[in-house]
Formats: sequence, structure tokens, C-alpha cells
Amino acid sequence: MDTSTSYRYEQLAELIVGMIDKGALAPGMRLPSVRTVSEQHRISISTALQAYRLLEDRGVLVARPQSGFYVAAARRGARALPSASRPRARASTVSISGAVAALLEHASNSTLVPLGCAVPDPALLQSKRLDLALARAARQDGTRYNTYCAPQGEPRLRREIAKRAMRVGHALSPDDVLVTCGATEALTLALTTVARRGDTIAIESPTYFGFLHTIEMLGLKAFELPTHPTRGIDVGAVARLLETEPVAACLLSSSFNNPLGSMMAEDDKRALLAVLARHAVPLIEDDVYGDIHFGRERPKPFIALDGGANTIYCSSFSKSLAPGYRVGWIAAGAYTQQVMERKLAFSLCSPVLPQIALADFLESGAYDSHLRRIRRVFEENLAHMTRTIEASFPADTKVSRPAGGFVLWLELPRRFDSRALFDEALEQGICFAPGDVFSASRRFRNCLRLSAGHAWNDDMEQGIRRLGRLARTLLAR
Amino acid sequence: MDTSTSYRYEQLAELIVGMIDKGALAPGMRLPSVRTVSEQHRISISTALQAYRLLEDRGVLVARPQSGFYVAAARRGARALPSASRPRARASTVSISGAVAALLEHASNSTLVPLGCAVPDPALLQSKRLDLALARAARQDGTRYNTYCAPQGEPRLRREIAKRAMRVGHALSPDDVLVTCGATEALTLALTTVARRGDTIAIESPTYFGFLHTIEMLGLKAFELPTHPTRGIDVGAVARLLETEPVAACLLSSSFNNPLGSMMAEDDKRALLAVLARHAVPLIEDDVYGDIHFGRERPKPFIALDGGANTIYCSSFSKSLAPGYRVGWIAAGAYTQQVMERKLAFSLCSPVLPQIALADFLESGAYDSHLRRIRRVFEENLAHMTRTIEASFPADTKVSRPAGGFVLWLELPRRFDSRALFDEALEQGICFAPGDVFSASRRFRNCLRLSAGHAWNDDMEQGIRRLGRLARTLLAR
Repeated sequence: MDTSTSYRYEQLAELIVGMIDKGALAPGMRLPSVRTVSEQHRISISTALQAYRLLEDRGVLVARPQSGFYVAAARRGARALPSASRPRARASTVSISGAVAALLEHASNSTLVPLGCAVPDPALLQSKRLDLALARAARQDGTRYNTYCAPQGEPRLRREIAKRAMRVGHALSPDDVLVTCGATEALTLALTTVARRGDTIAIESPTYFGFLHTIEMLGLKAFELPTHPTRGIDVGAVARLLETEPVAACLLSSSFNNPLGSMMAEDDKRALLAVLARHAVPLIEDDVYGDIHFGRERPKPFIALDGGANTIYCSSFSKSLAPGYRVGWIAAGAYTQQVMERKLAFSLCSPVLPQIALADFLESGAYDSHLRRIRRVFEENLAHMTRTIEASFPADTKVSRPAGGFVLWLELPRRFDSRALFDEALEQGICFAPGDVFSASRRFRNCLRLSAGHAWNDDMEQGIRRLGRLARTLLAR
Repeated sequence: MDTSTSYRYEQLAELIVGMIDKGALAPGMRLPSVRTVSEQHRISISTALQAYRLLEDRGVLVARPQSGFYVAAARRGARALPSASRPRARASTVSISGAVAALLEHASNSTLVPLGCAVPDPALLQSKRLDLALARAARQDGTRYNTYCAPQGEPRLRREIAKRAMRVGHALSPDDVLVTCGATEALTLALTTVARRGDTIAIESPTYFGFLHTIEMLGLKAFELPTHPTRGIDVGAVARLLETEPVAACLLSSSFNNPLGSMMAEDDKRALLAVLARHAVPLIEDDVYGDIHFGRERPKPFIALDGGANTIYCSSFSKSLAPGYRVGWIAAGAYTQQVMERKLAFSLCSPVLPQIALADFLESGAYDSHLRRIRRVFEENLAHMTRTIEASFPADTKVSRPAGGFVLWLELPRRFDSRALFDEALEQGICFAPGDVFSASRRFRNCLRLSAGHAWNDDMEQGIRRLGRLARTLLAR
């Protein structure tokens, strides 16, 4: 692709986004055909198609076979995006554990409207087929598997994981996959391998509070990077940081950031990898939401772009299939041996039968249709949620436009206190995640995260409406 | 109990042990009745009974209902006990991981005679009933449990664990139990809670190589304590150590030490707890073998003696029921909150369905009869193994007399090299654990550990005979 073509399709894409933001193109509206738009703008058909595909990847447009491209339902022109973050430029120790434990305690209270935890609703996941595979394995082969497996995990499961990696362009050997207790253990193994107490980890801002908690418990420091609500971290800021500050690792969930739902463009990902490689700073990548993409193609993980030369990849089945099974994995490239030693030392190996059940499920080919279904479900949930927020929250509330996953990030005026909202919401039977737990320096007190992981119903809708009214009342005080 | 009585029953017990060692009392022989012995020695019947019970607890005698006391089958007079260890008196960094990984790789090779790994044979464990509970839970309640549980684990399982603790005299609330990925994760949580990189942990010598590996991976140092082959660590040595050296924790598997099978007397346990409490050094207790006792009563864990005031208790179902399930637990007393935060940060929570299956199994009451069966099986295996060793190993081989568990510790003359034996044994299709992996300073090169966790059969017997011949050949060179 030459540069001029690259410019043209990006220009067209920006024009379309501008029209949507101004309301000239409404959600659900059909776009002109690729042929028409190529004639109107005097560009080639392939350039026009490239622009549409880019916007599809970003979740702005939806392609319907034999029909054309439409403005995505979740795409609302009425609300501005949250601001790009500009955290203070220094590493800070983290002290988040109390806040995280308190949040999780409320989030697991099933009497509350469940907007707090980014856990998919078991009823949405429909894990029956997987559970039957577990029942079968336990009944038929329970004795055979009642022993420790290798610390790396069951070979059949590692083979299936490696096969799926291949499909997003990452040539991975089953020998380089190590099965973990969710992405959380994977992340712990990665961090303990590359960093020591007192070291600094560069992270997105906002970022998943679980990352902050693990960083705190390992005695590490966090450096929060400026982060754009749709494009992710500012690569230039990383480059500047590494010139001045020793950083042990960069930790990202780029597809898709939790809570923003942002997705770094592939070019930005490559640029970031180049900067990190130049300074020999490893990248730890958390890809738990990568399979829940709203665009046509699954975004390429970092590890597929650098072949794992400088990337430690962590993921799990917890967001897309089986949170109760606690099966994740890590592909640690050059660090594989060190990670394996830590797995052995910290938890020996993972339970065997859940791994066998997952291997059976993946081998059956059922995962792809499962993913197609839940992607649609989560995207629709987010569209419902966005519409309800627009109808009920204060007029100047900014709302994220996630390209995947199932959470929304809301930014209210600076004086707004989401902690006060949190307390009042709990009294009214609603749980959500207040903004400050997403920052090592406890920024984002005027923000909040809502999870759309649960089936959309009247309770959810009424819960969000009540939350919106509460926010308006609080702001009016 | 007054001191003179205490002396009398201990004197009688020592007399009996001496007679067995000299061959005056042979394995399987019936002892005089309690009444007869009380008359012979002019002691009360209760004192005589106390002596017999003490020896029963130590696995020297076996009580048969309505019949009396017999010399235990595993008790062989022909072999002396391994020496009490006298490690050098300083903390050392640990560098064991390569040796451990190499051992485990061979130990999992199913074509070798399985004397290497202390893992119970799935065929002996007979986990069918537990596996069916798992199958039922997955089939009937899979959807309901397809979500994260609390970091502490499933309340039903924690209740059953607390109920069992009560039976060994430990008043434990389900709220103080936290479910882990085996005792290995429990130990990791305990160590990261009480120690920081560079700190010293006091351990038995020899000790389980997994402890050494975890200590190494956490950047801790190990101080090896003098340890007796049946009575465990020397409490006086701990007292002297704490006068001079800062120690972050003491880590023991007192009932029963792996590889010695030693068991500290209750008085020694109390004395140790008093010494540790005086210096505010927490005790981390690993009790995974505690349920596999050959004496009449389950030895009391440390935590039952100090009520958890200064003890962190770790255990699992891996040695007695379900290694493949990877379910362990930790009761951390004053450290409960800190351990919970680490569990949350390092692995979030454990898989749910295996916990439900274990809760079902425990609630059914099936665990006690299961334990009675496997205790007998492991004790018989050890007796077979001891006899075979006596018939085939060099004449001056010393053999441990475990009071529980399913491993034997062999000590050969000082010039013997168990690493050389290891290499030759592998070529002949036999795996065992060479002695040096049980020491931070790589002592015990003239020792080895054999596991009796597998069903006793001709392959096992022939394997040990071949190993004995190899050892004789090596010594003769």
C-alpha cells in the first residue's frame, strides 16, 4: 500500500465518522454503496472499501452480507467521547487493594443490579456443551486424570490454543503455551518473571483495577500512560518515558482496554513494539477481550506482530466462555522456561479435568459459532445501554464507544463524584464500578464503568435510568 | 500428667523399641497384654497403655481390636535409622529449580518404574465417587456455577474443611478458610505474606524439594535445621538460631515430613510454638500427609495447639484423594485478610465445579472410610518396600520408619553417589528421587527417596531389587 492510498481511505473514514457525530448519518442508516462513494470522491473502489472495512473494524459500521454497510447501532452521535487521559508523569506506588476488595464484595451481591463486575452472565454464555464435556470426562476418564499434569498443562488443550493463535497470524507451538488459573495467574507469572519489587510497570490510564491490584501485591510501581478513548495509548509518550525512566515492562490490554473498549491501530501497535524493543522493555499483553470484537476481523494481538520476540501474551476463556473454569494461558516466548519454573513453584499445575473438557469443546469446533453469538449479544447489550444512558444521564455525560468487550466508560463533569454516586446507588440496589479504582493515582473520580455483561432486561434498563437520575441529582446539588 | 508417669511410659516405650531393634520382638509378633506388662514392670495399667498407644502413634505397634498390640509389619529391626541431620549453620540462597524440573520430567515418564514422584497412584485412590459428584454438578448446575466464586472459595467446601479441622481439635470458622490451587499455592500465599525477597526461612533438613523451589523463586533464603529421622526438628536448634539470626518464618511439614516420614511429638510441637511465639516468628505448616497416619490417632497439627495465633496452616486433598483436582486450602489466622488479597491478586479465585464436587463428597461422609482404606494400603506398600530394600540393598543401607505418608528415605555410606545411581537407574527404566534435591545446600548426595504411592506389584518389587543391585555394584567400584 503506498502512502497516498493510505491517506485517502483514512480521510474518507474520518469524513464518515464526522457525519455520524454530527447526526448526518444516524445509527442503522445504510451507507452509499462502495461504487457510489468511489465515484463521488473520485477514489478507487478498493480505497472506498478499505475505508468501510476500517470503520467496520472499529465498530463504527456493520456489514450485512448482500446488503451493504450500515451505521452500527452502538454508534451514537449524541454523546462525545471521554477525554484522552493525561496522567501525571511519574511512577507511583499502588494502594488499591482495599477499594478493590470492597467493590468485588458488592459486585458479587446478586440482589443488586449487576453493572459492577465485568463478568459475563452465565445465562448468556450458555456453557451447556462445555459442561457436558466435563461431565463426560469425569465419568469416563476420572481415574485416568486424577494425577498432576505437567506444569505446562494438558497437551491437547495447548494444541487447540496454538491452533487458534495461528488463525490470528501468530505461529505458536503447543510447547510455548502454558495453562494457567485464568489470565490473572498468567499476568502474575509474567510480572514476577520480568520485574522485581520496586520496579516500574507502564500501564494504560484508565486500566483494569485487577492489574493495579497485582502490581500492588508484587510491590511494583505503576506509570500511567496518556490513553485515548478509542485509539489507546500514546506511543510518543511511551518513547519519551523510556528515554528518562527505567521501566521493567509495559502492560496493556490493547484489544480491548477495560474500561475504555479502545483498540490500538495495527500501525500504532507496530510502532509501540519498535519503541519497546529499542529499549529492551518487554510487553505484557492481556488479550482476554480480543475474541469479543465488533469489527469484521479479530484485531491482531501484539504477539502476532512481533512473533513473540519481546511480547508475553496472556489470555483466558473467562470473558467469552467459562469464568467458572478458571482456565487461562500464557505464551512467554523467550521467557517460557522462567515462566514454567514459576508456575511449578507457585501452583504446581492446573486442575486436569476442566482442561480436558475445554480441549474436547475446542476440538468439536463449537467455539467459533459460540463466539459469533456472544459478540452479537454483547454488542446489542452495549447499544441498549448506550441509548438508556443518553436518555437518563446528565446531558454532558461522555460515553465510550467500545470496539469490543462488554463495558462502557462514562465521564461526567469534573466536579462529579462517582464515589458519592456509588454509595447512593448501593442503597437503591445498583452496583457499578467507580472510576478511581481504574487508576494507580486514583484519578477518574468523575468517571464510572458500567458492565453490559448481563442479559438486557427491564431491571437493567430501570437500574441505569435510576443511576442516571441519581447522577443528575448529585450534579445539581 | 505428672513427670514421673511421663518418664515411666516413655521408658517402657524405649525398652520395647530396643527389643524390636535387637530382633527380640519380630514384626507381626503379639506383645504381652497391658495387664501383664503392668505387673512385670510394676506400673499402672494406664501407664502401660500409654506406652503402647505412644508406639502405636509412632507406627511401631499396631492395635487389633479384641486382640491386643502387635509389632508393625513395616517395623524392621534389621536396618538402622538414617542419621539425624547436622546441616551447616547458615542461611543459603537456593538454586534447585533445574534439578527439580529434570526430576519431574523423568518422574512423569510412565514407562519408568514409578518410585520418583510422591504422587498417589490414581488406581489406589479410587476417586470414582468424587468424579461422579463432579459429573453430576457439571450436568445439573454447570450454568449456575459458570462464574467467579469469592476469592476465599465456595462456602460449602469451606464449611466441610472447617468441620474436619474441628475433629483434630482446631476450632476453625469457614470464614478463615481460603481455597487454593493445592498446598503449593497455599504455601506461596503464606510465604509472600510473611516474607520479602532476601528474607530467611527455617526449614527441615531434608525437606520437600517443592518448598525449596518456591523459596528459590520468591528470592528467599533457606536455613536448614537439624532434623531427626523419626522425631523431626531439634527445637533447641531453633531456639539458638532465633537468638542470632533474623528469620521471617519457619516452614515445616511435621506430620509427616517428606522425605523422612518423621513426626514431632506433641510436646516438641508445643515447645517449638513457644520458641517461635517468643521471637514473633510465624510458623507455616504443611499438613498434606497428616490424614495418612499409621498410628491410631491423627497427629494434632500445630494450628490445633496454638489455635492459629502464630501458625499459618496449609493443606490439600492431593495426597489422599484427588491430585488431579488441585484443591488445597489455607487457614491463616491473623494473616487471613492479607492472604485473601494475595489470592485475589495472583489467581483471582479457584475453579468452581471441582470445589462443589469435593463439598458433595465430604458432605456424604465418604471421606473417612476412604482414608481408612488408603492408610492401610500405603502402610502395606511401605512394608513391602522396606522388606524388598532389606533383601536387595547394600547391607549398611539405613531406612526411615515413616509414621505416615508413603515415602521412604534411604541413607547409604558417605561415599555413595545417588546421582550416579539415578543415571544408571534411568537407563534400566527406574525413576527415584536423588537425595540432594531435598536440601538447599545440596547435602544428602548419599541418600535417596523412594515413593510407595503406587500399587505394589512385581514391577515395583523387581524395580527395587534392580535398584538395590545397582547400588551394591556402585558401592563396590
